[in-house]
Amino acid sequence: MSLRLKVRLLGFSSGTPLVVVDDSVASALGAHAHDRLVLKHGVGEAVAVVNVARHLPSDVVLVNDEVAELLKLREGDEVEVDLASQPRSTFYIRDFINRVQLTRDEIHTIVKDIVEDRLSEVELTALVVAAEERGLSVEEAFYFAEAMVETGERLELGVKPILDKHSIGGVPGDKTTLIAVPILASLGYHIPKTSSRAITSPAGTADRAEVLMPVNLSIEEIKRVVLKVGGCIAWGGALRLAPADDKIIRVEYPLLIDPFLVASIMAKKVAVGATHVVVDIPVGRGTKVKTLREAEHLARTLIEVGRRLGLYVVCGATFGDQPVGRTAGPALEAREALQALTSFRPVDLVDKAVGLVGLLLELIGVREGRLAAMEALTSGKAYAKMLEIIEAQGGDPGVKPEDIPVGGKTFTLKAERGGIVTWINNTSVATVARLAGAPKDKGSGVELHVKLGDHVRVGDPLITVYSEHSPKLHLAEKYIESNPIVQLGKPGTDMLLKKLLEPKLPLEPLTLGR
Amino acid sequence: MSLRLKVRLLGFSSGTPLVVVDDSVASALGAHAHDRLVLKHGVGEAVAVVNVARHLPSDVVLVNDEVAELLKLREGDEVEVDLASQPRSTFYIRDFINRVQLTRDEIHTIVKDIVEDRLSEVELTALVVAAEERGLSVEEAFYFAEAMVETGERLELGVKPILDKHSIGGVPGDKTTLIAVPILASLGYHIPKTSSRAITSPAGTADRAEVLMPVNLSIEEIKRVVLKVGGCIAWGGALRLAPADDKIIRVEYPLLIDPFLVASIMAKKVAVGATHVVVDIPVGRGTKVKTLREAEHLARTLIEVGRRLGLYVVCGATFGDQPVGRTAGPALEAREALQALTSFRPVDLVDKAVGLVGLLLELIGVREGRLAAMEALTSGKAYAKMLEIIEAQGGDPGVKPEDIPVGGKTFTLKAERGGIVTWINNTSVATVARLAGAPKDKGSGVELHVKLGDHVRVGDPLITVYSEHSPKLHLAEKYIESNPIVQLGKPGTDMLLKKLLEPKLPLEPLTLGR
Repeated sequence: MSLRLKVRLLGFSSGTPLVVVDDSVASALGAHAHDRLVLKHGVGEAVAVVNVARHLPSDVVLVNDEVAELLKLREGDEVEVDLASQPRSTFYIRDFINRVQLTRDEIHTIVKDIVEDRLSEVELTALVVAAEERGLSVEEAFYFAEAMVETGERLELGVKPILDKHSIGGVPGDKTTLIAVPILASLGYHIPKTSSRAITSPAGTADRAEVLMPVNLSIEEIKRVVLKVGGCIAWGGALRLAPADDKIIRVEYPLLIDPFLVASIMAKKVAVGATHVVVDIPVGRGTKVKTLREAEHLARTLIEVGRRLGLYVVCGATFGDQPVGRTAGPALEAREALQALTSFRPVDLVDKAVGLVGLLLELIGVREGRLAAMEALTSGKAYAKMLEIIEAQGGDPGVKPEDIPVGGKTFTLKAERGGIVTWINNTSVATVARLAGAPKDKGSGVELHVKLGDHVRVGDPLITVYSEHSPKLHLAEKYIESNPIVQLGKPGTDMLLKKLLEPKLPLEPLTLGR
Repeated sequence: MSLRLKVRLLGFSSGTPLVVVDDSVASALGAHAHDRLVLKHGVGEAVAVVNVARHLPSDVVLVNDEVAELLKLREGDEVEVDLASQPRSTFYIRDFINRVQLTRDEIHTIVKDIVEDRLSEVELTALVVAAEERGLSVEEAFYFAEAMVETGERLELGVKPILDKHSIGGVPGDKTTLIAVPILASLGYHIPKTSSRAITSPAGTADRAEVLMPVNLSIEEIKRVVLKVGGCIAWGGALRLAPADDKIIRVEYPLLIDPFLVASIMAKKVAVGATHVVVDIPVGRGTKVKTLREAEHLARTLIEVGRRLGLYVVCGATFGDQPVGRTAGPALEAREALQALTSFRPVDLVDKAVGLVGLLLELIGVREGRLAAMEALTSGKAYAKMLEIIEAQGGDPGVKPEDIPVGGKTFTLKAERGGIVTWINNTSVATVARLAGAPKDKGSGVELHVKLGDHVRVGDPLITVYSEHSPKLHLAEKYIESNPIVQLGKPGTDMLLKKLLEPKLPLEPLTLGR
């Protein structure tokens, strides 16, 4: 039974077609929350997920901009509203929850429905959580990646090989891309690097690069820059490369899970036309991958899914037990990266960059890839190339590291005892930098004065927090008071880290014999 | 950094506090979709999940009725808006996804946050899907049940024992409760039965009972009715008995999963004060539980969780391979139930009712429970009690089965060949009844003229569909054309049911030797 309802415009766009009706309207239509309604107006037809509300008149349907645009609706228009059937992919998602192995067609249908906004939030979340719980097979990851590519835009440079680099992430201060891209481009290769902004970390590569140059490039601009100077460092978020992934991430983020990791990395690489890819897998406490064994498993899947997609993939497990270099936060990191291109320090950052670039060069047949990378760096070619990239993207090629502004409010934590640095807490470093304002306040962040193994004396500075605003600096300070950032010890002491777990139920007191 | 924003009223209530802000506002606050914002107005403070939209002015926050009421807001008021911290339960849900065993405190916190609407839809869905994927331990089910009871209303009759009955469901036409409640009440016991309405079936017990009497009773009315006549059959949906469960069901429904089954059944029983409960577990094709072994597992959990909650529980596995009795649809079933109370037919319905009532009577110490139940039925006491219940709930005690109106548009499917009824498709029966208009149109539904094992000749009627509206009858007819409802065969024939699964990839044609 369809109803004729009067349109009220919500006046905003929410990314997907959405309507709101009163409880009484929903029950007259036989609709429950999360069902879909089909709206008809003239010859137009739109399907929207229904939100069921109360206190609304029973002859009204509220529509968002997406629905209004699809049906060219104005306030007060009449529309015919009926219960819509469910998209096929909802059945496949239920099968997926029930651990059925999905076919290629079924996965392609799901991805298409994600991109076209036919799934409700409940259904999309169910897909993501079920994937996390059951895991994806290599075959499923391949099908998801393939479908993500097909439903998105693609970059076509018309050259070969096209190189790319990706990091699984999780280590604060990882500015390796800002070194690796200019090295590769300076060697004459094409590397159209797209990066993300921080979601839960103090800086994403796009946030770091944006301190030096505009990163909101269109696909056409990326093409122009890369064909001109060999490489770019652009923000990938608005490019609609594998847009299904962008929608999946919106649900993954609040849950801190990432089950489509392999599919989405590979989809983005195929979408930019990459032929050879190096994937950095940081291994360590406070990163996503805790052991080398896990890293090997992940690498195997990445390589195999890549192979099926026609990509050559090499993976490098990297040391992730402490931040890379000595800074975390967009401006501090941009500065450190520029310095590394001229001073070749800090050594861990340089070592990581040339190590990963070396793997990638060897993948395309270069002998002694690491040496070639180091040579590009120490000869100054990579630095010169970085300035070309900055200029080609519209930044200032005259930029000097010391000119990059960082937060003027600072706080330095000093050692209250001496010892050897035995642990630097990645998560706490990230939290402090975020409390100080990163990534939104580009000048905010953390500088580490010590790294693992350093000998520290009482009163030595351990970390300095930079912030653009005093209240934020204060928040970071408060956090540091109760959360250890750097642990000092002597090997063989401080073995008891923490008392774990109270007993769940009160224990009966022991009855001692009289 | 907080922002001052102008309030716009959305003008509806969505069950939980909700605000909408423009993309630019969200990013200025550092908020992502599904994060929470805290709004301050005068001394008031409200936390709401944020929906991020586009095309909105950047000085505006849209608030729904819940937020407006909490803060006493009017259109144009200014509020201070800031990013809120996440409720503790979101961390526990992430642990739960990662298969950590949750403690009693953690589960109680989750349930409290569900009831108080502090979780976003993504988080609630994640909890439900993770529970489905990993399963709940007995301990977890107990904690969830306990917490669901604590966060809801309770019925206190002040008598003992209090009996109750529950069915896991899944068989169409299951009107057993309409027979069991008057039998038990006629024997002098108290049974405050609360039931649900249909969500995916053609009729829930509340829908059936509503044909005979009002079922929207308040807790006070239930108390009055039960203390007066011993039993009631009320709709439980609006009583806030275990309200967490009602919110969980809203997410379970579109996914067709039910991982909190045991917890929610037990919570509702404790909330009405039950001391002894019989649970019906229909076993068969087209029901939730497919094998006796599964039924035994489920029973063990129900009994153990019940025991920890202080409830005596007995379970009965019942034959679920075909509908119970001969009708499905609210009015048809109410009529059949009334007839069964006077004519003691159909036999399967009567057998099921006295069988389950017998188990419950024996649980409280009655010998030969089944005989006692049958005696209450055949003596006419149960029928007289049913009329008392109908009257006490405000219905017409003079109701005659033949006076109950059923849909005037009918269609009868006849056998195109002879044979023995070897299969009746529960799911198709339910679908046909729903297409015909049930449960919304109370007079719509299906009548079965045959049951399993019946001998059928060409031209014999198999089923009749009743509908209140011709277009719906037509939909049901169309469905029947392509979906078998009743299968006729001779034992040992028709062994091939269906060709399964196309090969996923085209097979290479066999190359025959020349």
